[in-house]
Amino acid sequence: MEFDLTQGVQVLTRTPGTLRSVLAGLDAVWTDATEGPETWSPYVIVGHLIHGERTDWIPRAQIILAQGPNRRFTPYDRFAQFRDSQGKSLGDLIDEFERLRADNLKALAGWRLTGAKLALQGEHPEFGTVTLRQLLATWVAHDLGHIAQTARVMAKQYREAVGPWRAYLPILDR
Amino acid sequence: MEFDLTQGVQVLTRTPGTLRSVLAGLDAVWTDATEGPETWSPYVIVGHLIHGERTDWIPRAQIILAQGPNRRFTPYDRFAQFRDSQGKSLGDLIDEFERLRADNLKALAGWRLTGAKLALQGEHPEFGTVTLRQLLATWVAHDLGHIAQTARVMAKQYREAVGPWRAYLPILDR
Repeated sequence: MEFDLTQGVQVLTRTPGTLRSVLAGLDAVWTDATEGPETWSPYVIVGHLIHGERTDWIPRAQIILAQGPNRRFTPYDRFAQFRDSQGKSLGDLIDEFERLRADNLKALAGWRLTGAKLALQGEHPEFGTVTLRQLLATWVAHDLGHIAQTARVMAKQYREAVGPWRAYLPILDR
Repeated sequence: MEFDLTQGVQVLTRTPGTLRSVLAGLDAVWTDATEGPETWSPYVIVGHLIHGERTDWIPRAQIILAQGPNRRFTPYDRFAQFRDSQGKSLGDLIDEFERLRADNLKALAGWRLTGAKLALQGEHPEFGTVTLRQLLATWVAHDLGHIAQTARVMAKQYREAVGPWRAYLPILDR
C-alpha cells in the first residue's frame, strides 16, 4: 500500500489516545514490565515516542522541506528517554506526548504537502537518500510498531499464568 | 508474573476502548487490511473477540464454577466471525464488543472469586485439565495478543512505503 497523507494522519492522530486507553491508571506491574534485560517497558516506550516528537519526525521533515545545502539528519538518540522521563509519572508522559503530537500534526497540516513536496529528499546518516514520503510513512509504522510492542510486553507477563494455552498464543513467545 | 484478578480486570476493562481508539473512523484500507491470504483484518479480529465474549470465556468459567459431572468445554469456533459479522459495520462491532465485555465483567465481579475458586478445574477439549485462574489469564493475554496483532497488521501495510527504514522496524517482517 502506498503512503497516503490523509490515511497516515488518521493513524498518527489516534496514537496518544490509544496509549492512554491501554496504559493510563494501570498497576505498575504492567507499565514497568519488560520482555527481559535491555528491553523496554510501556513507560520507557512512551518516553521514546516523546523524544521522537521533539527531535525526529518534524525536525527531519523541516530539513527536507528547507532543501538547504546540508540535508543530513541528526542521528536519533534511542536512549534519551532514560534521562528525559526521570521524575515523571506515566500520566505526565502521556499528557506530554498528546500535546506534542497535536502540535506536530498542526505543523504538518500547515505545510499543505503536495506530491511534489513529498518526493523531496534528505540524507539519513545511515541509509543515505530518503524522501519525505518515506519519512512520514515511517512515522506511522513506528507508532503502530510501538503500540504492538506495548501490548506484547504486557501479554508476556502471563506467559506462565496461562498454563497450556501458551501453545495457542504465539504472542507470548515472539 | 502470577495472575491477579484485579490487575487482569484492569486490562480486560480497557480493551474495547483501545480498539475503538485505534480503529473507529479509519479508512477501510486500514480496517480491512491483512497480512496475506488466510490472515485476519482488524475487522475480522473484532468479530473474533465478540465471539469469545459470547461463547468462550464466561461460559467456560461457568462450567468450571458449576463443578458438574461434565466439565468439558465446547471447542472454540475460530471462524464464527466470518458468518456473524456479516452486514455489520466495524462501528457496530465495536459497540457490540464493548457491551458484551461490560456485561461479562459485571458477571465476573458478581462471582466474588476467591483463591480457592480460581483453583477449580475444567476440561479443555485439547489440553485436558485447566484451572479457572489459567482461563482468566488467557482471556487477558488473548486480548493483548489481538491488540498487538491489530497494530501489526496495520503497520505492515507500509512495509514498502517506509523505504530503507524497514531495516529498523522489525514489526514489518514479523
